[in-house]
Amino acid sequence: MFLTRTEYDRGVNTFSPEGRLFQVEYAIEAIKLGSTAIGIKTKDGVVLAVEKRITSPLLEPSSVEKIMEIDNHIGCAMSGLIADARTLVEHARVETQNHRFSYGEPMTVESTTQALCDLALRFGEGDEESMSRPFGVSLLIAGHDENGPSLYYTDPSGTFWQCNAKAIGSGSEGADSSLQEQYNKELTLPEAETIALSILKQVMEEKVTPNNVDIAKVAPTYHLYTPSEVEAVISHL
Amino acid sequence: MFLTRTEYDRGVNTFSPEGRLFQVEYAIEAIKLGSTAIGIKTKDGVVLAVEKRITSPLLEPSSVEKIMEIDNHIGCAMSGLIADARTLVEHARVETQNHRFSYGEPMTVESTTQALCDLALRFGEGDEESMSRPFGVSLLIAGHDENGPSLYYTDPSGTFWQCNAKAIGSGSEGADSSLQEQYNKELTLPEAETIALSILKQVMEEKVTPNNVDIAKVAPTYHLYTPSEVEAVISHL
Amino acid sequence: MFLTRTEYDRGVNTFSPEGRLFQVEYAIEAIKLGSTAIGIKTKDGVVLAVEKRITSPLLEPSSVEKIMEIDNHIGCAMSGLIADARTLVEHARVETQNHRFSYGEPMTVESTTQALCDLALRFGEGDEESMSRPFGVSLLIAGHDENGPSLYYTDPSGTFWQCNAKAIGSGSEGADSSLQEQYNKELTLPEAETIALSILKQVMEEKVTPNNVDIAKVAPTYHLYTPSEVEAVISHL
Amino acid sequence: MFLTRTEYDRGVNTFSPEGRLFQVEYAIEAIKLGSTAIGIKTKDGVVLAVEKRITSPLLEPSSVEKIMEIDNHIGCAMSGLIADARTLVEHARVETQNHRFSYGEPMTVESTTQALCDLALRFGEGDEESMSRPFGVSLLIAGHDENGPSLYYTDPSGTFWQCNAKAIGSGSEGADSSLQEQYNKELTLPEAETIALSILKQVMEEKVTPNNVDIAKVAPTYHLYTPSEVEAVISHL
Amino acid sequence: MFLTRTEYDRGVNTFSPEGRLFQVEYAIEAIKLGSTAIGIKTKDGVVLAVEKRITSPLLEPSSVEKIMEIDNHIGCAMSGLIADARTLVEHARVETQNHRFSYGEPMTVESTTQALCDLALRFGEGDEESMSRPFGVSLLIAGHDENGPSLYYTDPSGTFWQCNAKAIGSGSEGADSSLQEQYNKELTLPEAETIALSILKQVMEEKVTPNNVDIAKVAPTYHLYTPSEVEAVISHL
Amino acid sequence: MFLTRTEYDRGVNTFSPEGRLFQVEYAIEAIKLGSTAIGIKTKDGVVLAVEKRITSPLLEPSSVEKIMEIDNHIGCAMSGLIADARTLVEHARVETQNHRFSYGEPMTVESTTQALCDLALRFGEGDEESMSRPFGVSLLIAGHDENGPSLYYTDPSGTFWQCNAKAIGSGSEGADSSLQEQYNKELTLPEAETIALSILKQVMEEKVTPNNVDIAKVAPTYHLYTPSEVEAVISHL
Amino acid sequence: MFLTRTEYDRGVNTFSPEGRLFQVEYAIEAIKLGSTAIGIKTKDGVVLAVEKRITSPLLEPSSVEKIMEIDNHIGCAMSGLIADARTLVEHARVETQNHRFSYGEPMTVESTTQALCDLALRFGEGDEESMSRPFGVSLLIAGHDENGPSLYYTDPSGTFWQCNAKAIGSGSEGADSSLQEQYNKELTLPEAETIALSILKQVMEEKVTPNNVDIAKVAPTYHLYTPSEVEAVISHL
Repeated sequence: MFLTRTEYDRGVNTFSPEGRLFQVEYAIEAIKLGSTAIGIKTKDGVVLAVEKRITSPLLEPSSVEKIMEIDNHIGCAMSGLIADARTLVEHARVETQNHRFSYGEPMTVESTTQALCDLALRFGEGDEESMSRPFGVSLLIAGHDENGPSLYYTDPSGTFWQCNAKAIGSGSEGADSSLQEQYNKELTLPEAETIALSILKQVMEEKVTPNNVDIAKVAPTYHLYTPSEVEAVISHL
Repeated sequence: MFLTRTEYDRGVNTFSPEGRLFQVEYAIEAIKLGSTAIGIKTKDGVVLAVEKRITSPLLEPSSVEKIMEIDNHIGCAMSGLIADARTLVEHARVETQNHRFSYGEPMTVESTTQALCDLALRFGEGDEESMSRPFGVSLLIAGHDENGPSLYYTDPSGTFWQCNAKAIGSGSEGADSSLQEQYNKELTLPEAETIALSILKQVMEEKVTPNNVDIAKVAPTYHLYTPSEVEAVISHL
Repeated sequence: MFLTRTEYDRGVNTFSPEGRLFQVEYAIEAIKLGSTAIGIKTKDGVVLAVEKRITSPLLEPSSVEKIMEIDNHIGCAMSGLIADARTLVEHARVETQNHRFSYGEPMTVESTTQALCDLALRFGEGDEESMSRPFGVSLLIAGHDENGPSLYYTDPSGTFWQCNAKAIGSGSEGADSSLQEQYNKELTLPEAETIALSILKQVMEEKVTPNNVDIAKVAPTYHLYTPSEVEAVISHL
Repeated sequence: MFLTRTEYDRGVNTFSPEGRLFQVEYAIEAIKLGSTAIGIKTKDGVVLAVEKRITSPLLEPSSVEKIMEIDNHIGCAMSGLIADARTLVEHARVETQNHRFSYGEPMTVESTTQALCDLALRFGEGDEESMSRPFGVSLLIAGHDENGPSLYYTDPSGTFWQCNAKAIGSGSEGADSSLQEQYNKELTLPEAETIALSILKQVMEEKVTPNNVDIAKVAPTYHLYTPSEVEAVISHL
Repeated sequence: MFLTRTEYDRGVNTFSPEGRLFQVEYAIEAIKLGSTAIGIKTKDGVVLAVEKRITSPLLEPSSVEKIMEIDNHIGCAMSGLIADARTLVEHARVETQNHRFSYGEPMTVESTTQALCDLALRFGEGDEESMSRPFGVSLLIAGHDENGPSLYYTDPSGTFWQCNAKAIGSGSEGADSSLQEQYNKELTLPEAETIALSILKQVMEEKVTPNNVDIAKVAPTYHLYTPSEVEAVISHL
Repeated sequence: MFLTRTEYDRGVNTFSPEGRLFQVEYAIEAIKLGSTAIGIKTKDGVVLAVEKRITSPLLEPSSVEKIMEIDNHIGCAMSGLIADARTLVEHARVETQNHRFSYGEPMTVESTTQALCDLALRFGEGDEESMSRPFGVSLLIAGHDENGPSLYYTDPSGTFWQCNAKAIGSGSEGADSSLQEQYNKELTLPEAETIALSILKQVMEEKVTPNNVDIAKVAPTYHLYTPSEVEAVISHL
Repeated sequence: MFLTRTEYDRGVNTFSPEGRLFQVEYAIEAIKLGSTAIGIKTKDGVVLAVEKRITSPLLEPSSVEKIMEIDNHIGCAMSGLIADARTLVEHARVETQNHRFSYGEPMTVESTTQALCDLALRFGEGDEESMSRPFGVSLLIAGHDENGPSLYYTDPSGTFWQCNAKAIGSGSEGADSSLQEQYNKELTLPEAETIALSILKQVMEEKVTPNNVDIAKVAPTYHLYTPSEVEAVISHL
């Protein structure tokens, strides 16, 4: 009695007879093709680590930005379509700046995450800022506010969850299993760095170098590791 | 003489030859996939209880919000697409705040429910706030106003009903039967808490813990139970 | 030479080769699925009676509103999609209030009916208030103005007729026959109440109780019967 | 080389390869399903007569309005979708009122007819007043201005013609033949009344009564016959 | 390699693989179904003559307007959809009136023609005045300005040409041949009248009478012949 | 793996899997059906020559304008849809006039050409001035500014090139070969006139006369040759 | 279970079930058909070199612009649809000029690149400046700012990367391999010129001349080489 999938998913934002939104599911597929990113929350702050796919030796590694600062207390790692992520991050930057200007205090990490997700939810609506399709990107949002450190995970449907640790991208399945084994609430930040990088190393097909991974922390402010800081973490593996 | 279903449901908001609106019916399917939520009205106030599906031990249970405050005299439990529910709740919060500001008194629970449903009804209209598809969520709205406690149930078609007790989500069929057996108008609030949780327990596939259920009451103000308060209710099962 | 029905009815508001508007016809089908409503005009006022389908004993019967007040001299009974009816009634309430404010006198029943139908006619036009599909509801509009009592019947095409008595909804065919047999212009209001309820009783599959019917009159002002008033009418059957 | 009709008529307002506009032709079909209306111009004024289909004895015959006043010197009879006609008539009423206000004199019958047709022509344009489909109605517009009495006939394409006599609706073919036989320019108004009603009688399937026909004249002002005036005409048949 | 025609012509204003605009071609078909019109330029002025199809003896011949005045120095004859022509003529009247008001002198015939064609070209653009399809009408525009008499011919594509003589409509092919044989630059206006009517007579299927043809001239001002003036021309055939 | 052409070219401005824009390619086909036009740049100025297809001896040759003035230092010859060309030329005229008004100096030929192409590129965008399809016309733009004489060639994609000599239209292939043989940078204007006309003569199917060709030059101002000036050039062939 | 590609790519900006955006992929195909362009960053500045396809000896080589200045510290080479590139470059020129005006300093190369990519990303959104399809062009953006020389590469998806050297267009695959072999960070600008041109020579099918290549550098300001400067580089091959 139900149709095959083919009849339903052409409307950008329409339910199938089973109650599914296929464009959102397909956007999630786009993320499964993306590079792996990992976030770990510790009591001292949050660590983000990402794989960078450097397709040519002539590419400038630092220009492949998969970790970005949103505000000085919030950063994010991404997997999926980078251009889409840039739009979301830019939106969040404006929101956090407006918040500081209006209220004289930083926006909380949850409010920032929700502002991102509100934009993501409304694809296909013809709004000024929204896209005509879902944003093809997942984010790990690391932040530190009055409630301490926190890590959020967003997907293309505009849903978000707070996590202790989370992996996204093509290697996320294996990485999530490793995280569940190795995570505990008493991890120190340096321990989290090492775990994040060692898991990334497992899912990457090439040797880990400062050129093909990025690491950042929010503890309590955002800091993107320099190549030598990344090298130092690598040396502890 | 009639067509098969396949020819009609692609228009977002169009009648089929039998007078049906398929997108609304499909959105209702989305809710049948959702987690179970239960509401019970007593003479002392209303209890809401929801199942939370914690897909990973690394997920922060408190960030899976399936019960939300609308105003301090109104809360709601939801089943279906969380991001859609958040849009509805945000809309209701603005409405109730505006009402307080304009009239110097709280909005009634029925007016709040109707404001939510008006938004839900107008999907596909190109309005600023409305969606291009039905909202894929059902709500149990618990409130307390000058008429005493009340419980409303809304569905994606924008229709609402007032109930004494109601279950929504994947386990709603069995839960509704149990509610009909156990409900009576003289229930106390603690009795309602116990009934709600014991029914949830039946439809959940895992052990009930403060991590995988949430309980709230409006009696006469909204209160979300702390983990230890939930633990206390569990201990009475 | 003509196409089958399948090729034409997908345009929301387009003629078929035979000069038919299928979306309007399908909306009329939606009403045939609705609960039965009956209106009877007497020289003393108009009586409205509706069947209420109470799908669960936990549903609050009074929240299933199938008779609504438009102004204090006009009420209406409905069959079909309740959420659609609410939009039409809300529109009529604003119109009648504006009329009182602008002209210092009540709007006539016919003008009110026409205002409702103008909105119904313009579906698919992209206007602010109109819907993207026909309103899936029929109304029996009872009123009393300078011309005395009157009863109007509207359908989803935006057409209206004035009637002495009329039934709508799933049981309308049998109920209309009974009305033709029993109606005469000299009926008193109590007689009309009894006739309306006895006919409803025939088309309903369960025992008539104050829980599953509503009765209202406009004579000359709108009054929705209390459960005990309904009980009194039932006792006369 | 040409396509079959099926490929072309789904665009609301698009030419077929043969240069035809199918939606307009289909709207004309809607009129062929309508009740019959007749207009006859005499040197003393214009007579309009229409068949009214009273589908139930409980329907108030006077509420089935198939002849309407536009201004006190213009009236019209209609066949087709009544709700569409009402929109056109309402538009014409505003135009004639505006004309009186702006110029201090009545609008001519031809200008009024043209204003109606301009609205009819522009279907599918997204204008504020125009429809998304052709108006499914034909009008016989009777009027009296500085040029004496006149009778116009409009169709859904927005074209109009001036006539001495004309029939529209399901019985128009036979009625037009009868009119051609019986019409002469020297007819008096009473003679025209009798001819109009005798022709209506031929095409109607039931006995002519004041309940199922309406008669009006513009001579030189609009007047809708009372039941007893209609009865008097019937008595002359 | 190319598609059949069926795949391309449904877009209102889209090229086919062969570089053709089918909607324009189909609109030209609509004109081939129209009544015949003829224009002849002489050194003394321009003559327009049209066939009028009087489908019923009860139709007022003068209300079938196929020749219209645009300004007192410009008139036009038409073939195709009369309602479309009326829109174009109304547009031209406003343009010429505005020109007189702004510049204190009449608009030239070429500028007027170009203004008409600009409107015709932009169909499908969603402009306020333009149509959603091509205008299904050809015009012969006769005028007299500072450059003397002139005759223009327009088609649905928005293209125009200046001619010495031209026929449009269903009989245009034969009529154009006759015009080429009989035209010379030294024709007097009365000679042109006679030629135009004698050619019309050949293509019409019935006897020429003042009822079924119209004649007008611009010499140098627009004048529509009275029935007796038409009779006089007929008598010279 | 790739689709056939049929699936892609119905979107007005969409890439095919091979990276092609079919509507632009089809518009180019429209030009291949057009009359031939030739432009030759010399050190003294630019010559434009076009074939005019006079389909009837009753057509006024001077009204078939295939060479138009844009400003007194710029002219253009065209091939394809004349009504489209007129829109582009009108746009360029407004641009050059605005430039003179704003800057007190003539617009350069390149800026004028770019302004035309910007309009051509944006078809299908819903802008006020742009078309819903590509402009079906190619232009040869001849001009003279501070950089001396110049000749530009534009196509429907909105691309332009500067040329020494160029032919467009149905005979362009043969004409371009001839131009490459006969062109040298030291040509005088009279030599260019003779070459242009002799090449046109080769591609035309009838005898060259002042009626069926037009010639213009920009040297340094635009001048359209009179019939006797054209006759003089013909006499040199 | 997945559909074939044919069902998905007709929506301009919609995900396929595999998470792909086909219109972007097809636009990238358009670039693979384009002429080859090469950029090389040295410590002294950036060199850009492009192949120019001169399809006719009568074409003015300098009018085939494949390298353009954006600001005096930024230039770009392009491959793909030239008209699309011109729109992007024009947008970037306005942005850089606005930046200078607002902040009194040049815009950084990265900000300029991002501004270009933001426009490219938003195709299909109905914004004023964006296109209804992806921009069918890749750019090599060479610049020099406070961070020294830099080279960016953009593709139709709105993504950009910073590179040391990069080739785009039909010969990019071979050219990129050659660049990887020959590039080192210590190259001087003259060495880079020679490498760029020698690689272009390999992928071009004809002899390299100042007519069919263009070279530019940003060191630190934009300079397009004159024919004799190009000749000098050729002489070093």
